[in-house]
Formats: sequence, structure tokens, C-alpha cells
Amino acid sequence: MFEIKSKLEKRRIGILKTKNGDINTPFFMPIATKGAVKNILPEEIKKIGAEIVLGNTYHLWLRPGDETIKKAGGLHKFMDWDGPILTDSGGFQVFSLGARAKEKFGKSGVRLSEKGVYFSDPENGKKYFMSPEKSIEIQLNLGSDIIMVLDECPPFPCDYQYAKKSLELTARWAKRCLEYFQEKTGNMKKKPLLFAIVQGSVYEDLRKESARQLVAMNFDGYAIGGVAVGEPREKMYEILNWVLPILPEDKPRYLMGLGRPEEIVAAVGAGVDMFDCVIPTREGRHGRLFIRKNESKNQSADWRTKIKIKKELFYETININNEKYKEDFSPVDEYCDCALCKNYTKSYLRHLFAVSEPLALRLASIHNLKFYTEMMKKLQEE
Amino acid sequence: MFEIKSKLEKRRIGILKTKNGDINTPFFMPIATKGAVKNILPEEIKKIGAEIVLGNTYHLWLRPGDETIKKAGGLHKFMDWDGPILTDSGGFQVFSLGARAKEKFGKSGVRLSEKGVYFSDPENGKKYFMSPEKSIEIQLNLGSDIIMVLDECPPFPCDYQYAKKSLELTARWAKRCLEYFQEKTGNMKKKPLLFAIVQGSVYEDLRKESARQLVAMNFDGYAIGGVAVGEPREKMYEILNWVLPILPEDKPRYLMGLGRPEEIVAAVGAGVDMFDCVIPTREGRHGRLFIRKNESKNQSADWRTKIKIKKELFYETININNEKYKEDFSPVDEYCDCALCKNYTKSYLRHLFAVSEPLALRLASIHNLKFYTEMMKKLQEE
Repeated sequence: MFEIKSKLEKRRIGILKTKNGDINTPFFMPIATKGAVKNILPEEIKKIGAEIVLGNTYHLWLRPGDETIKKAGGLHKFMDWDGPILTDSGGFQVFSLGARAKEKFGKSGVRLSEKGVYFSDPENGKKYFMSPEKSIEIQLNLGSDIIMVLDECPPFPCDYQYAKKSLELTARWAKRCLEYFQEKTGNMKKKPLLFAIVQGSVYEDLRKESARQLVAMNFDGYAIGGVAVGEPREKMYEILNWVLPILPEDKPRYLMGLGRPEEIVAAVGAGVDMFDCVIPTREGRHGRLFIRKNESKNQSADWRTKIKIKKELFYETININNEKYKEDFSPVDEYCDCALCKNYTKSYLRHLFAVSEPLALRLASIHNLKFYTEMMKKLQEE
Repeated sequence: MFEIKSKLEKRRIGILKTKNGDINTPFFMPIATKGAVKNILPEEIKKIGAEIVLGNTYHLWLRPGDETIKKAGGLHKFMDWDGPILTDSGGFQVFSLGARAKEKFGKSGVRLSEKGVYFSDPENGKKYFMSPEKSIEIQLNLGSDIIMVLDECPPFPCDYQYAKKSLELTARWAKRCLEYFQEKTGNMKKKPLLFAIVQGSVYEDLRKESARQLVAMNFDGYAIGGVAVGEPREKMYEILNWVLPILPEDKPRYLMGLGRPEEIVAAVGAGVDMFDCVIPTREGRHGRLFIRKNESKNQSADWRTKIKIKKELFYETININNEKYKEDFSPVDEYCDCALCKNYTKSYLRHLFAVSEPLALRLASIHNLKFYTEMMKKLQEE
């Protein structure tokens, strides 16, 4: 299922096998929250070089509904993506978006119990109930290749007592997810993978406790959740140092929701294999572009062997809306062969943003995803 | 320059030669107002089968500026489109958008004189002066293949006296455009084409007078302007019947800003060769899709030989936002091989619209442009 081809200090280079194909690790997943990567078609994702995308259980459950997608033949067919798909459990959105429903409809918002969590759709106030079993059921209906367990996502900051209670609930939910998953996939020829999520906020003993509990249950992979929720970034590295040594060597590790390029490089250096983040597409939509630095295509990439590398060493960002690009007829990145850099100048992209042409968002997103994907390819080299 | 290969009653099938390639006639031009077809890249336009796009002089002059585009190597290079480009003169926008500047900035709006027209940029109130010579200069800077003369665009309804005064001014401006154009392109190896615009509102004698005046000046082609500005559609057919017999057989005829499919079929039947319209892309962005009807790919297309055909005979429109498509897993048009119909279901497209995914706009626009382009291909058959 997961094969490590080589290790360079803590960096792991391998292949993750899923029912819809193999993925080279470490990898980055473009986000297709609602069944589409914003502005980008699957054939473009392939051209960019990404091998897996991430769909969102919460959003697809509410609209169009997992039953509809099941009838369509699954999410792969629905969105015309034949590579692997990871779906998150929906937990994060249940908690973060529940508050919006409260504001809008005066409903109770999110109500948590041992059994699961009641919440209202922030669009129309409709009541829903999410449980560990329900989350797995939805993800199975979607046809996901990598399924995440339902976790409670405590906010940051979060006091020790709350974090402790939360991770205990998360562990009980993980067990229920695992049992339900095993029951439902027992007869499947091509099984999806099931990943657990380590929680425990910024508390060392809780993080370690959470990791140990989940490892004991033997999942296909382990995610580290509850980072990138507002804690200082230094904490993130500390959390990795607490948790990673406890996780089994032969299982993939997924750092959820991260991050900026230098954070990903550092986390790969620490031994993480999988990433997802809105940064490349969201920054792209605002005209902020990632550009490789001090590197021609043939130059060696020694930045990737360093942990906690400074961004200045391997990339910079530009804001294409800056007036100085108005008549800059060079490509955004001369070493990039994406649909933007191959055919267009900074001047043209700046113009598209200036006149609000939607192509701007598409081209900038493609470029930033290409930057991330190329970075991961470098990190896959020995 | 323009070669008519065959005529079927009044329908003309030919080839229009431009400095950036030949175009089969009759043809429809996707609109790239600000140097981009909304949501669609040039390679997709090519796949759709369109052979020419339309750029807008007014918009590109104001942003990013024709001088900037000239420095970029021309509009073709700037927007990465190597086929022909027609640019309108900017007259229509000067008059229609001038009023907006007045509302926003309290400036004088549009002030017309014999020399040209003063107007303010509706974005920032900046003053501009457009003259016949200026319009040609901008279009030459853009590198347009088909250049339109500057015309005054009278509103509808427009009284006889105003329409008469207006077409006389338009004729004097057309002459100035022609002289300036000849002076500036005299030494060019690859010359653009220059088209005049017949005005005269809904008055038979004025329309005929306008056509005669312009034909006497010998342009490369003739457009019929001031239709699709609010007059009843029956009037449009009348106007064609007044004007087309006066226009020379061997010059292309362009009906500006039209239209719905049945209107285009009728106008082709009356002897028109060129069209542009926002309908396919704008309707697409609202989820309204054109679908071929009563026709398999192999069936004969006898609808195209009829003038004033009823739309029911050859196509229908659907609104994909309709609830009934929620679980419709068939393609929008089973006989269409566009990027939407080839890979996606009605259910998926409806979902993308329902959750405001920008891909919806792209896929729907591609489909509608494909519908228009395929229709034109049928009209190009003998």
C-alpha cells in the first residue's frame, strides 16, 4: 500500500498505492472542495503534474448530496478525474461553518454529543447530523480513495482540559470509523484507505497520547490535524517532532492544511509525505505568484535537503497587480512551462487582473499549482 | 481578399482572407472585448472551431492602452491568439458608456463635434478624445486584421432628423477613416482590411442613402450597424432587405451585434457573411444552454436553407439551473463533442452553477460557442 523507496535523513521518497492509481510521495493535493478545482479542468491538473486531488465531504454532502454523486457513478466520474481522490471527513467545516448558520438563522449552531454532531446548513438553516459512521458512509458513497476519520477540531487557543476531552472523543470516534469502515469495505475488491487524525492542540503529552492511541488501532495512514489553525508556526515544527517519531515508519503521514512552500519543505524534511493547502490557488486568485529563485532547470536543488530553509533561498512571490509590471513583457517565471508562463507576459496577466477578466484567476492558479507540484517533484528526487 | 465559392439563393459561401489567415464564411466571432474571451483560452477557441475573435478598441485603448499592446508586439501576441482579429471602432462604447461617467463623476459625459467625440472614462473620470483618425490609429496599434470605421451610434428610437444628421456625420467620418487608413497602411506589406458601417436607423431612405455613400468610397467590407439596439426584430429583416441589394456582391457583409441562432440563420439566408454577439457566452454564464434538435450528426440540415426559420425546428434552450437536472446524468447535448458534453453530465454542470464554481461559466460558454460555431459550419456547407 505504501512503499518507501529511499530515505534521505528523515525525508522519505516513496509510492502510495490507491484503488485509482499510484502517487509519488511526498505529494501536494490541489483542492477540489466542491468537486472542482477552482477555474481548472482535470486535464489541466494532469498537465500541471498533480496526481491526486482533495474533495470535501461536508460540502459535497450538502450539495449536490453524496447520494446524487453515488448515482452519478462516484465523484471520479462526476468530476471527470480518474486519478486518486482524498476526502476529508467534514469535521473541520461542521465546526467552522456551524457558527455562520447560527448568525444567519438563529439556530443553535453546532451541538456536540458523544454520538455525533448536530449542525445547520449555513445556506438555508437545514438541520444535519454528522456522526463517525455517517462521515464514512458519505465518503464511501463519493468513492474516495483515501478516507479520513471524523475528528472534533478544537479551536486555537484551546485550554488543556478541552483539548484532552476532545482528543479522547476523537479517539473513540476514530475507533467507530474504523469498525464501520471495516464492516462496509469487507467485501470490496478495491478498498479505499482509511486515515486517522492526530489531535491534541499544542500540548506535548496530548499530541503523543493521541498518536499512540491511533497507532494502536492500525490505520492505513496518519494525519496531523489541528495545525494551521492559528497557532504560531514554530509550534507546528514542535508538534511534528513530538508526533512523527510515534507514527509507524511504513505508513504515510499527512500534514493537513499546510502550507507555505518553506513549511512544506521543512515538514518533508521532518518526514511528512502528504500535503494540501488553499494557498497556491487562493494566492493566485489575488494575483500573488510564486517564482523559483536562484535556480535554472539544470541547477541542483540543494535547498530541499535543508530543514527550516529560508524562503529567500529558493523562491519569491510577486504581486502581479503592481504597476511596475504594466509593461513587463517577460514571463512570470522564465523556467516554468505552465499555460501562463509558456504563452503570456506579466503585462498580460496584470491586465487581466486590472480589468477583472476571469482568465486571470485561472492562469494564476495554474501557475501556482505548477510551482507547488514542481517543488514536490524536486522533493521526490533522491 | 474575399472569394465567394458558391451561392445558394442569397446565401453566400466563401473565404475571407486576412493578414493572419483565411476564414470560412459565413462566420461567427467569439467576443474577446478586453483581450480575452471570458473564461476561455485561445487553444480552447481553436478547439471549438472559431477562426476569428473580436476585440474592443474602446476597452483596450483605456486599459491597458493601445501603446502598451503595440509594445507587446500587438494584440495577437499579447493574448496569444494567432488567428484573425476584428476590432470594432469603439464608437458604440463611447456613446453607451459615456453616460455612466456622467452619473459617477458629474462630468459632461459625451460631447460630440464634427472633429470627434469627447468622453470620460467611467472608471476614473479621465477625459478622452476619440476621432476617426484616433480610432484607426488605435486599431493599427492593436494590429487588428479587420478595422472598423468610427461611427456615431444613434440610440433607438431616434427621430428622422437626428438619424439623417447622424448618418451624414458618419459618412464624413468614414471618409476621414479611409484617408487616414490609406496614408498609414500605404507601405505595409500585410495590410489589414477596413470596413465601413451603414447607419440610418429604421428609415428606408436613410439606410439606402448611407449604403450608397459608403459603397461609393470603396471599402473592403460593409457592416450594418445600429441594429440590435432595441428596434423590433422584424425591422432588422427589413433593414437587410433595404441595404444588402445596394452592397457590392464581392465584398463581405457584417451584421453587427447579432444575434439569436434563428436570426443568424435568417441573415445568412439574406446574404450576410459575418456575425458577432455576446449571446452564447452571456447566456452560458447564466446557465442557459443551446441544444441541437431533431438532428443527428448524419442528418441533413435543411433548416439552413430556409429564411426566417423557427427556432423550434433546429434547436432548443435549457436552463441548467432547473431542479429537474439535479440527477440527470446525460450530457447537455449528446451530439456535441465540446469539453462540457464529452466529459460531463447535466447533473454536474447544474451542481457547479448551484455552488458558484467558476468552472460552470467556462464549460457553459464553451458549449454555447461550440453550438454557434457548428451552426456556422452547417451554413458553410453547400
